[in-house]
Amino acid sequence: MTTPSTPTATDRIPTPKSPPPDILRCAYMELVVTDLAVSRDFYVDVLGLVVTEEDDSTVHLRSFEEFIHHNLVLRQGDVAAVAAFSYRVRSPEELDVAVAFYEELGCRVERRPEGFTKGIGDSVRVQDPLGFPYEFFFDVEHVERLAWRYDLQGPGALVRLDHFNQVTPDVPKAVAYMEDLGFRVTEDIQDQAGTTYAAWMRRKPTVHDTAMTGGDGPRMHHVAFATHEKHNILAICDKLGALRRSDAIERGPGRHGVSNAFYLYLRDPDGHRVEIYTQDYYTGDPDNPVVTWDVHDNQRRDWWGTPVVPSWYTDASLVLDLDGNPQPVLERTDASEMAQTIGADGFSFTREGDAAEELPEWKQGEYKLGHQL
Amino acid sequence: MTTPSTPTATDRIPTPKSPPPDILRCAYMELVVTDLAVSRDFYVDVLGLVVTEEDDSTVHLRSFEEFIHHNLVLRQGDVAAVAAFSYRVRSPEELDVAVAFYEELGCRVERRPEGFTKGIGDSVRVQDPLGFPYEFFFDVEHVERLAWRYDLQGPGALVRLDHFNQVTPDVPKAVAYMEDLGFRVTEDIQDQAGTTYAAWMRRKPTVHDTAMTGGDGPRMHHVAFATHEKHNILAICDKLGALRRSDAIERGPGRHGVSNAFYLYLRDPDGHRVEIYTQDYYTGDPDNPVVTWDVHDNQRRDWWGTPVVPSWYTDASLVLDLDGNPQPVLERTDASEMAQTIGADGFSFTREGDAAEELPEWKQGEYKLGHQL
Amino acid sequence: MTTPSTPTATDRIPTPKSPPPDILRCAYMELVVTDLAVSRDFYVDVLGLVVTEEDDSTVHLRSFEEFIHHNLVLRQGDVAAVAAFSYRVRSPEELDVAVAFYEELGCRVERRPEGFTKGIGDSVRVQDPLGFPYEFFFDVEHVERLAWRYDLQGPGALVRLDHFNQVTPDVPKAVAYMEDLGFRVTEDIQDQAGTTYAAWMRRKPTVHDTAMTGGDGPRMHHVAFATHEKHNILAICDKLGALRRSDAIERGPGRHGVSNAFYLYLRDPDGHRVEIYTQDYYTGDPDNPVVTWDVHDNQRRDWWGTPVVPSWYTDASLVLDLDGNPQPVLERTDASEMAQTIGADGFSFTREGDAAEELPEWKQGEYKLGHQL
Amino acid sequence: MTTPSTPTATDRIPTPKSPPPDILRCAYMELVVTDLAVSRDFYVDVLGLVVTEEDDSTVHLRSFEEFIHHNLVLRQGDVAAVAAFSYRVRSPEELDVAVAFYEELGCRVERRPEGFTKGIGDSVRVQDPLGFPYEFFFDVEHVERLAWRYDLQGPGALVRLDHFNQVTPDVPKAVAYMEDLGFRVTEDIQDQAGTTYAAWMRRKPTVHDTAMTGGDGPRMHHVAFATHEKHNILAICDKLGALRRSDAIERGPGRHGVSNAFYLYLRDPDGHRVEIYTQDYYTGDPDNPVVTWDVHDNQRRDWWGTPVVPSWYTDASLVLDLDGNPQPVLERTDASEMAQTIGADGFSFTREGDAAEELPEWKQGEYKLGHQL
Repeated sequence: MTTPSTPTATDRIPTPKSPPPDILRCAYMELVVTDLAVSRDFYVDVLGLVVTEEDDSTVHLRSFEEFIHHNLVLRQGDVAAVAAFSYRVRSPEELDVAVAFYEELGCRVERRPEGFTKGIGDSVRVQDPLGFPYEFFFDVEHVERLAWRYDLQGPGALVRLDHFNQVTPDVPKAVAYMEDLGFRVTEDIQDQAGTTYAAWMRRKPTVHDTAMTGGDGPRMHHVAFATHEKHNILAICDKLGALRRSDAIERGPGRHGVSNAFYLYLRDPDGHRVEIYTQDYYTGDPDNPVVTWDVHDNQRRDWWGTPVVPSWYTDASLVLDLDGNPQPVLERTDASEMAQTIGADGFSFTREGDAAEELPEWKQGEYKLGHQL
Repeated sequence: MTTPSTPTATDRIPTPKSPPPDILRCAYMELVVTDLAVSRDFYVDVLGLVVTEEDDSTVHLRSFEEFIHHNLVLRQGDVAAVAAFSYRVRSPEELDVAVAFYEELGCRVERRPEGFTKGIGDSVRVQDPLGFPYEFFFDVEHVERLAWRYDLQGPGALVRLDHFNQVTPDVPKAVAYMEDLGFRVTEDIQDQAGTTYAAWMRRKPTVHDTAMTGGDGPRMHHVAFATHEKHNILAICDKLGALRRSDAIERGPGRHGVSNAFYLYLRDPDGHRVEIYTQDYYTGDPDNPVVTWDVHDNQRRDWWGTPVVPSWYTDASLVLDLDGNPQPVLERTDASEMAQTIGADGFSFTREGDAAEELPEWKQGEYKLGHQL
Repeated sequence: MTTPSTPTATDRIPTPKSPPPDILRCAYMELVVTDLAVSRDFYVDVLGLVVTEEDDSTVHLRSFEEFIHHNLVLRQGDVAAVAAFSYRVRSPEELDVAVAFYEELGCRVERRPEGFTKGIGDSVRVQDPLGFPYEFFFDVEHVERLAWRYDLQGPGALVRLDHFNQVTPDVPKAVAYMEDLGFRVTEDIQDQAGTTYAAWMRRKPTVHDTAMTGGDGPRMHHVAFATHEKHNILAICDKLGALRRSDAIERGPGRHGVSNAFYLYLRDPDGHRVEIYTQDYYTGDPDNPVVTWDVHDNQRRDWWGTPVVPSWYTDASLVLDLDGNPQPVLERTDASEMAQTIGADGFSFTREGDAAEELPEWKQGEYKLGHQL
Repeated sequence: MTTPSTPTATDRIPTPKSPPPDILRCAYMELVVTDLAVSRDFYVDVLGLVVTEEDDSTVHLRSFEEFIHHNLVLRQGDVAAVAAFSYRVRSPEELDVAVAFYEELGCRVERRPEGFTKGIGDSVRVQDPLGFPYEFFFDVEHVERLAWRYDLQGPGALVRLDHFNQVTPDVPKAVAYMEDLGFRVTEDIQDQAGTTYAAWMRRKPTVHDTAMTGGDGPRMHHVAFATHEKHNILAICDKLGALRRSDAIERGPGRHGVSNAFYLYLRDPDGHRVEIYTQDYYTGDPDNPVVTWDVHDNQRRDWWGTPVVPSWYTDASLVLDLDGNPQPVLERTDASEMAQTIGADGFSFTREGDAAEELPEWKQGEYKLGHQL
């Protein structure tokens, strides 16, 4: 854990003269799903999210400690994808700021005083410079905060939307743009040569509101909800087992190195990845120390050294443009974290200086190409 | 989960006319370790077992709720192996019963009124018909039960010895012998053809005091200690990560299908496998329902469907004869669970009736021979 | 914690020459409730017990890890009371043994081959020498063990019936009789003068299947169900708060000194006391050390020194005779634990030798008679 | 839970024209203790706080996730008291802002470029209009964030400083001043007549950085540290029991109504009150709904309806002026929460409309004046 190196992006997105909008936090994601009933079953009956409002084509869901209308919108559509990464800003006036910021960047910007979805008022949606559909809003319908409603909360109750995670080919370029948008890096993964594989960035004082993961993009890696305790996450696994739906579990549960949080990754019926996450740390001071992890540290992604399943590196969801069409996916040209760590030439270490071959057999490369039992 | 089939062992060990000794519970294991200081560090400084007594060549350890002298003996030696699987019997008289039982079986039997190790009095050691060094004793030194000593207990406190697990080539043969010895099957793994891959057997009313795992044997698969809660097990993982010793984690943490317990498998510095285990169920009624799992049920070994790492199937510790020499290892001739479930021709299911190829990619065979990313 | 003194009962119940039945465990309690719908709501909708079978006058309930028909029967009646403390024995033949044992004691004995309640076959009910309605049975209908059904288990899932607790005027007399019945003492509370205030007694290897609490009796103090972890108990409190039914919480949650278990006491709509309990220790060895607590040790009832609410000492449920009439309640003549520890002359200590006045104000006697703020 | 009424303070502290400093969070408390060795034992050996630096007269302590020099200073002195409630501001420039703000209020202000204690640079201390010694600083020595050091963390690890709590006679007056200082109310307790008994106020987006509790003041009610999970708090209780120091537990553990957090109150060797606290909720949106509790709601202070021990209402620590002399304590003239809820004429309710006499006996007034058993 050392100081991060300077971003090495070649084609930097210019910093607008216009200030960025004052973003409070990630607020909700709009997901296009191909079978609404099946997705509703997953998010409501299995995961226990609270239905604020629903109709034939959409379901608006929230977590138990939320007081705004929703944290997740499921919308029926033909192609599974993400329609919006939505952030709440500090005041109605910040929408004008957002418009100016993105217009200066030459992005497509669309504003709807009546909002793009139920429960939300005046909103701005943009195709951002990385190709992601970002939304900003302040005006929102308040609903009951169900924090005290323990009679409604199951063993795996999801209490907050915690963060998004985006896949993008050039992480330093993405980080520089996000810093212009007012985000701060809390942790990242680099190698000795200065390649950045991923970065975590925050507005609210947690480890992140979103992260930039290196890979073919723009794509959505995951959306994360928080529980109170670790046993709540284990309860979700136990319930999935009981329902004979354990194949929804992609990775974990485990302890992250990055963020120090306890985690679980699920795949919804369309393959959208959902993280369940708990217990990262306060990052709100301006001089909060940035933690940089070596890409060859095999505890960076899982503190217990559990190998990362390859699909976690390769799979991600399409994102839509403002017309509802999938954005084309650009290939990452920098080194890939998977190739660096679990590919044919890969190696990792538990203790700095160890080569992979010094690891015990059970850690040495379960996922290596052509690995023979 | 159906009724288990009849054991199909061809060369059954004859049932003695002499009754078996009345066994209370698994009580301790004697492990030969090749570097006592290194092993002591692992079991005491990392895992937090309590030192009852130690000298230059042995360390006697116990768990926090134990009142007998020890649950684990580490003894310095040249070859890492198990010197004894030791059971406590109900009274001193049961030692005579044990001697008669094993002499009738034609086993080598050795009795020492002064015990084979500190803290234990009159004891019988045998080379049992399966080749394992079994010990029986009643007389034992009482020590303080540290159950209430929360000032001494760390976040991952081990509170009880829970069970042993033995590798043996012919599981039905082993089960029939253990039933003669007074054990009862609580759960097992079979296939449609009636092959038994593993069986769990108990004296105390938990899922097991020992299990018989099919494989080349006689070898010791693992020794298991219990914690109170699941977070205690997670704390052990977190501590190993902090110590940069996460390579000691072989498998888990996870939820077992068999036993319904929460588990973690570690490997000690000699490669001896230690399970940390919590929360199985009461099995003390004579008509306790036996649970039989299909070997192709991918939730049998891990309720969340997490693949079993191959080393967990292949690796195990040597066991010693009464002269201290390693027992020769006989090959299993029946089908192997690993080959059936993670080999080239294997398949498994989450929902009965599903073929493996219907599993999502991330479940479909990370460990299959020659699997290509 | 020292060796307990010899019972001092004056009028000992004679030990029968006939051996006692081989009891496995406490199995179920039959409760008479005055409003079945209201009680069903409490046990099913609030506490989440599983309904095995019900009709207009009775509800048969079980815990999630149980495989026998029920652990609790609610029966509509005019007077809230306990109709049976029911124990399971090891075989059908043990019923004959039970009949002989109690007939020799001169007790009223009634045997019904068809059972006294649904799901149970051949049963013996007696009015035991202490005035309690005890039942013994082996034959029982098996039902699904829902241990793996995490989809049905709420945050406060009750997984086992753990124990009963009985109020009786002369504890040593009761203990001697229960020892004749095959029970063993694991812990007790005494004073320096040798008065015994309570004793915990077991068949299965936990701290108890039943306890004898000194007080006016025969009455039922409580019936206890186990959860897996402490957070499950806290979840029950949280849910009661959310339902605005926190007045059902009488005492706790807390850590017992005696038994070392984590506990909570509730009162059902008729005032029957229910304990929720988790994590005592293994007691199955015949030389299991008995723990004796000083009645003036203020951590005996709550390890954290939280004062016991007076109603916990004074209130208890009536028990019925075999005709369904309430048994008369006899007064305790020995010193009462409440008077000794929180009465007008009472005192307690945290560290031996401390007088009450040396305790901090917040511990010093919140419940003392006439205490002035 | 309804909208709070308008503050009713008669002698409002005038709002300065000078803006308030931009406060990040409560950062540390400086406590004067009368026996440093005894206090060090409590905070370090029992509670496990991390020693950053110490000498003969002071100990500087931090929590496991902190990266600034300390969260608590213990300083040897003659009178147990609080020397500083210290807040971190967003930048060095904010100290000038703080000076201007408090000078306009006519407060005594002292600035020390070298700081008032080790590890902290340029600092401003003031005697604020309510009589409390407030400190503001930005410049601070960074130390290792021990978040990942699970090898050092005990079962009850304290991971963050969460908040302060201050006793002041006129809560609305205090709230108005704190709002001028940039704090926002998240929850409060009022009665129908509009009397405010307590208010919770935040800068960081949790329920509070400090709270104003109505009572004789200025005094310090408590300082609170956070754990990750509820079991960590229970572990602290268990350890205190094991050390036979359970008399350090004043109130709890329990679930707060206000804040929804899980809590425990301890008293240190000087009687300073320390709360251990976990799991409140995000409050960072400007329109975060304020929760107002009725003073007669008996679940407001404890969600499970557990009565509040009187000492919790009456006891608090002295605070020092900038010369190190105890501030005189002014009497509260408004109604007291204790008198309203547990005094001679008090009553409380679980369900709105219930009178106290309808509560079960065990809830009805254990702490009432002259209550007879």
